[in-house]
Amino acid sequence: MGDLEEFFIRDTFAQAAGIRLVSIAPGRAVVSMEIGEQHRNSHGTVHGGAIFTLADTAFALASNSHGVPAAAINASITFMTATREGTLTAVAEEFALNPRLATYIVTITQAQERVALFQGMVYRKTKKRE
Amino acid sequence: MGDLEEFFIRDTFAQAAGIRLVSIAPGRAVVSMEIGEQHRNSHGTVHGGAIFTLADTAFALASNSHGVPAAAINASITFMTATREGTLTAVAEEFALNPRLATYIVTITQAQERVALFQGMVYRKTKKRE
Amino acid sequence: MGDLEEFFIRDTFAQAAGIRLVSIAPGRAVVSMEIGEQHRNSHGTVHGGAIFTLADTAFALASNSHGVPAAAINASITFMTATREGTLTAVAEEFALNPRLATYIVTITQAQERVALFQGMVYRKTKKRE
Amino acid sequence: MGDLEEFFIRDTFAQAAGIRLVSIAPGRAVVSMEIGEQHRNSHGTVHGGAIFTLADTAFALASNSHGVPAAAINASITFMTATREGTLTAVAEEFALNPRLATYIVTITQAQERVALFQGMVYRKTKKRE
Repeated sequence: MGDLEEFFIRDTFAQAAGIRLVSIAPGRAVVSMEIGEQHRNSHGTVHGGAIFTLADTAFALASNSHGVPAAAINASITFMTATREGTLTAVAEEFALNPRLATYIVTITQAQERVALFQGMVYRKTKKRE
Repeated sequence: MGDLEEFFIRDTFAQAAGIRLVSIAPGRAVVSMEIGEQHRNSHGTVHGGAIFTLADTAFALASNSHGVPAAAINASITFMTATREGTLTAVAEEFALNPRLATYIVTITQAQERVALFQGMVYRKTKKRE
Repeated sequence: MGDLEEFFIRDTFAQAAGIRLVSIAPGRAVVSMEIGEQHRNSHGTVHGGAIFTLADTAFALASNSHGVPAAAINASITFMTATREGTLTAVAEEFALNPRLATYIVTITQAQERVALFQGMVYRKTKKRE
Repeated sequence: MGDLEEFFIRDTFAQAAGIRLVSIAPGRAVVSMEIGEQHRNSHGTVHGGAIFTLADTAFALASNSHGVPAAAINASITFMTATREGTLTAVAEEFALNPRLATYIVTITQAQERVALFQGMVYRKTKKRE
């Protein structure tokens, strides 16, 4: 886990957003973010970009947990409810893993309530043998 | 445009990310972000969350440009290329508008190169007459 | 379940694709499709449209299982692997349910292997009381 | 165009759905489908799977138009309005092309009205030189 903790610490944008690493394991990662004034959009609720950043950070950790560099190529997110306060938690889980491509589901909750659902795909830079 | 400029200024998360409003018109908005150290992910390229936040901000401005509050319910984003420096621009354009739902396409470029493609849907809080 | 079986039988496009109803319960539906010559694309594998149709049919059954008409407004699908033969199964599960909007995850497998992942949102025509 | 016409003719699922090829060029394809009884869902409108299949067929033609086999890995679709009759047209246009990945936007209309918006990504089986 040491390498992945360092990987997380180098994530400047996540750090600036106040995201904290909760746990990490092969193909799985949990991060959290305490909602503050800095996360609000024009409606006063949490910015979609902040929720996406939280989910994307869990996704990056889970997809880079196998020692192969993985770059996000696609993501979709659905927002269920607007949130104003508390702590958001994102749990990323591997759905499928191929040598080149892998897919993850990320669930974002606040006090057990489902706030958003994220689905993402990475391109994996597996070394070629040809 | 005055009201929408104020709407943008209240977007704390976008402000913190260094996003600037370029232009706005009914159903259309352009924003930009100069890439800095704060926007990087663990690979040293621009964080997917930062690119999403830029696109989402243009989307929020375009979808709230008609005087009816609009909340994002869904978005998908595809990343074409990793970016390290320069200025990113996001252009949001209305694709379809119904009383309750509207859809937008957001194109994210850097020096004319296409960096990402975003598609988003909002739920519009149109006042009911029933 | 009687009403939902009739609902399924009226789904002409699903019937033409050879989709069968396996089970249905509030917020959950399972359908299957035996792969045949009719389902192939130009590469000789199962057409993305056939896999989407299978997933979309499970999604429609699950989202219409509460007695409130629900119309799909958005869906995203990720394809893990190309399939050529056997039986595909799609399991739709409710992720979140609000009066107006609901979100479902649909997993598509073939002989336990994950073939595709689908995420969809519906607009629910809940009667208003205002 | 001869090879691509043959490519289209081998698409059994598209043929069964009554899809016709309108035009094709590098990175661009147009297909159409006259709505019939066979395309309906349980609500009596055109099945999301039929609209997706139309869009996916245009996407497959556009992405395979460069002589490199391309397989869909991801797609998202947004439905603007329910349709009951007439002819649906899908226009696929290349948004970005890399050696391994390419992205397309597909617009689905009926009598000039926008019915759905589709965004898809392919993995391209470019021959390696390493």
